[in-house]
Amino acid sequence: MFPRFDLSAEPSVLTRGVGASPGAAFGKVVFTAADAVEQAAAGEQVILVRRETNPDDLAGMIAAQGILTSRGGKTSHAAVVARGMGKTCVCGADQVEVGRDQFTVGGQVVHSGDVISIDGTTGRVYRGEVPVRPSEVVQYFEGDLDPALANEPLVAAVHLLMSHADTRAALRVRTNADTGPDAARARRFGAQGIGLCRTEHMFLGERRELVERLILAHSKAERDDALAALQPLQRADFLEIFREMNGLPVTVRLIDPPLHEFLPSLEELAVQVAVAKARGSSDEQTERDERMLAAVRRMHEQNPMLGLRGVRLGLVIPGLFAMQVRAIAEAAVALAAEGGTPRPEIMVPLVGAVQELETVRGEAEKIIAEVVGDSGVEVLIGTMIEVPRAALTAGQIAEAAEFFSFGTNDLTQMAWGFSRDDVEGAFFWRYLELGIFGISPFESIDRDGVGRLVRIAAEEGRAQRPGLKLGVCGEHGGDPESVHFFHEVGLDYVSCSPFRVPIARLEAGRAAVESAGSDHR
Amino acid sequence: MFPRFDLSAEPSVLTRGVGASPGAAFGKVVFTAADAVEQAAAGEQVILVRRETNPDDLAGMIAAQGILTSRGGKTSHAAVVARGMGKTCVCGADQVEVGRDQFTVGGQVVHSGDVISIDGTTGRVYRGEVPVRPSEVVQYFEGDLDPALANEPLVAAVHLLMSHADTRAALRVRTNADTGPDAARARRFGAQGIGLCRTEHMFLGERRELVERLILAHSKAERDDALAALQPLQRADFLEIFREMNGLPVTVRLIDPPLHEFLPSLEELAVQVAVAKARGSSDEQTERDERMLAAVRRMHEQNPMLGLRGVRLGLVIPGLFAMQVRAIAEAAVALAAEGGTPRPEIMVPLVGAVQELETVRGEAEKIIAEVVGDSGVEVLIGTMIEVPRAALTAGQIAEAAEFFSFGTNDLTQMAWGFSRDDVEGAFFWRYLELGIFGISPFESIDRDGVGRLVRIAAEEGRAQRPGLKLGVCGEHGGDPESVHFFHEVGLDYVSCSPFRVPIARLEAGRAAVESAGSDHR
Repeated sequence: MFPRFDLSAEPSVLTRGVGASPGAAFGKVVFTAADAVEQAAAGEQVILVRRETNPDDLAGMIAAQGILTSRGGKTSHAAVVARGMGKTCVCGADQVEVGRDQFTVGGQVVHSGDVISIDGTTGRVYRGEVPVRPSEVVQYFEGDLDPALANEPLVAAVHLLMSHADTRAALRVRTNADTGPDAARARRFGAQGIGLCRTEHMFLGERRELVERLILAHSKAERDDALAALQPLQRADFLEIFREMNGLPVTVRLIDPPLHEFLPSLEELAVQVAVAKARGSSDEQTERDERMLAAVRRMHEQNPMLGLRGVRLGLVIPGLFAMQVRAIAEAAVALAAEGGTPRPEIMVPLVGAVQELETVRGEAEKIIAEVVGDSGVEVLIGTMIEVPRAALTAGQIAEAAEFFSFGTNDLTQMAWGFSRDDVEGAFFWRYLELGIFGISPFESIDRDGVGRLVRIAAEEGRAQRPGLKLGVCGEHGGDPESVHFFHEVGLDYVSCSPFRVPIARLEAGRAAVESAGSDHR
Repeated sequence: MFPRFDLSAEPSVLTRGVGASPGAAFGKVVFTAADAVEQAAAGEQVILVRRETNPDDLAGMIAAQGILTSRGGKTSHAAVVARGMGKTCVCGADQVEVGRDQFTVGGQVVHSGDVISIDGTTGRVYRGEVPVRPSEVVQYFEGDLDPALANEPLVAAVHLLMSHADTRAALRVRTNADTGPDAARARRFGAQGIGLCRTEHMFLGERRELVERLILAHSKAERDDALAALQPLQRADFLEIFREMNGLPVTVRLIDPPLHEFLPSLEELAVQVAVAKARGSSDEQTERDERMLAAVRRMHEQNPMLGLRGVRLGLVIPGLFAMQVRAIAEAAVALAAEGGTPRPEIMVPLVGAVQELETVRGEAEKIIAEVVGDSGVEVLIGTMIEVPRAALTAGQIAEAAEFFSFGTNDLTQMAWGFSRDDVEGAFFWRYLELGIFGISPFESIDRDGVGRLVRIAAEEGRAQRPGLKLGVCGEHGGDPESVHFFHEVGLDYVSCSPFRVPIARLEAGRAAVESAGSDHR
């Protein structure tokens, strides 16, 4: 599925990291997201090199050909986001010392602007440009296979295989896509809808200033102003996505991550303020920084993964979810007015108790009724099952949900007590060595623990509400072993990143064929 | 149970916070743990005032009469530790602005050395000294009831009630105690053993330097040296505790918290280094700080609650658990040699998979066999059930565990996805207001979610190993409602802080009487 390096010239290996998102990419080294965006806009191919990435780097990651980090494993931010984008990524190249405008590795220095090549399958990093060969399989799906490169029997085999798999499969395959172009690509790869449309990026970039105003608002009026400014922007985002997925379901997750991800880093700000003070500065900027530091400190969390995020945020910041629900409903109505068929599904994240969902649903239903009127548009409301308690009380939660989507990433984090940003680098190597698990539970679903929660929720949810739609939108949706498990449990669909859609389609077909020959289901 | 203020003189209220650990205390205000220790050693009564506390403040909290914080709720570090010690604590007094050597509240300034009084039941904070009356009930248990204060019918009633409760109860009541004096007090309150002896404090104070050496060790020899220096100190700690609990079981939890709790704060260190550099310093201290900063940064975790702690630490740092196991076994043998009857139980924290426990058990059994020889001492090995996956795979885990102790604090954190340090202050007020829950799940066990995990683990653990000992050592062990639930589930014991032991004994009796009249069990 992925382009690969032509190694016939035997290029020299600079270092090795973890192959975190397959593919082969080369470009000039840049060290900040801003540089990546600027140079890409100027037509350069760049590789973004960071110690680790965070949501602020998103625009740079999109602009870059590939990402190289010195910290974090296959489940680090860089790895997860890169896989989601189908972008080449090498993580945790721990021999690399990342500086401000150069990195060093084994005595060699690589400066900003030098060219490197990274292989997201093997984790190898090369100095200079290694020639790349495109993947014929991807060209096939994209419909632009170069006749000169085409391997005719391969194309015919892929075509036959995919049709056969789709015919047999019980599981539908959707995609995780957050933008119009991602949605369009996923459709070309055969996705039958979007199972997870994240909305965090709709709060970033130029809109960040509005979000700061929202978070730091001192009055209802200030907050409402910020929300009112965000609403039309998000409506336009949703409309673009719904258009690309015309006729297919699109599950939109209301905003999920912790507030502080939208604010400056506590450590950096504290250093900035302390240094300014030590230098005796007392200008306006320093005063502003001090006020911001106080706010960031107030919102700082010990364990943001388990803090104020998801539905909690929606219940604490009045109008936040309402703004998103209105934007979704209006976008759907706009598509219907164009003659399209929107099928929006609103997904409430991090629900642990039915009362949370009921509260959100109550408010959302009013807004939807008001916006939709007699346009014929139907908006479903459901929830992620990603908190263990949600799975354990699924019978109650199903009373307020038209669908469940298993967020198996977070479910794995909480069921095992593993922060994916922390554990893989810290001790997974040791756990694999000791045989505590044979494969990371983030790569392939842990049937006995996390899988048991999925089974409990599926059974008890459907017992409460026959016909409850069940899907999975964690990364496991694109893992072959896990797809077989989801088939066994009887889910309706899996959702995975666009590039994994063909694999998931194949595995969904295989699972159906295998279980037809056994008594698994 | 608690001393209270005599309010007949109508003292003026300075502010109000959350009554986090009951009692009435007054003393001179101090702002650092070091000041608390120093002034208490000089015979002063002090109240430790902090924005929030962390494990570094432990010695100061022990030295102080009470603790006042401006941040955090009933489940903050200050609250949990203070309740564990039976120390008066008012938390989250958010009107209070804590400075370096004074705090301000509503325009008033309270300086270091000024006297304040705090009421841990009502959350009220008074300026000056409010006279305190001791609790007659506690004096009864302590065996030093002042005859002049004694209310004879009360004493007789308490005596009768406690005997009756103990006779009827199916649940035993143990205590959470980490030191000899705590253990002795808990015994006077009727505890029938220790259900949770934490060992973190055995790595703090003067031993911190050894722990830094251990964590930053570059070679096996450096690590072994640090461990060898810690081992006799811990053996002495354990011997003191085993002596006080002679004849009764003592469950020792191997070290649990994340590494960075033993290292300086990332933010403070980053500021210190940046300021020193801005000033152009380049002395040895700055160089040392820079090296330490690099180490702290390397070990920094996004979500330490879900990071490298508990059994993970034991599997990653060779010799750490072995040192503790040896210290426990040697202390037990020493007590036996004195003619005592040690009943040590080694508890492995944060287990999520049976393979983790098997690995630790394999190493521990060898050490125990070697130390115990033919002394007749028996050492049990079991595990906390505090990670949801442990409850979901309890049948497997019971193969390697002689007992389970439910850590319902962490189980609640992970089942709900609630970091207790973050959530109570951030949104619990809103959740209580919206009726999402009627009482914090940290105060009283959530039967449908966390309770279901407890039931699953109890049933499946006993099905695998009949006679498996089951207890609970979370704070719920001292909550009346929760005690009734644990009785229903058929646990063998609850364990709670010394001051809650009499309540737990009463409730254990009540639960047995009630279920005898119904078909609950």
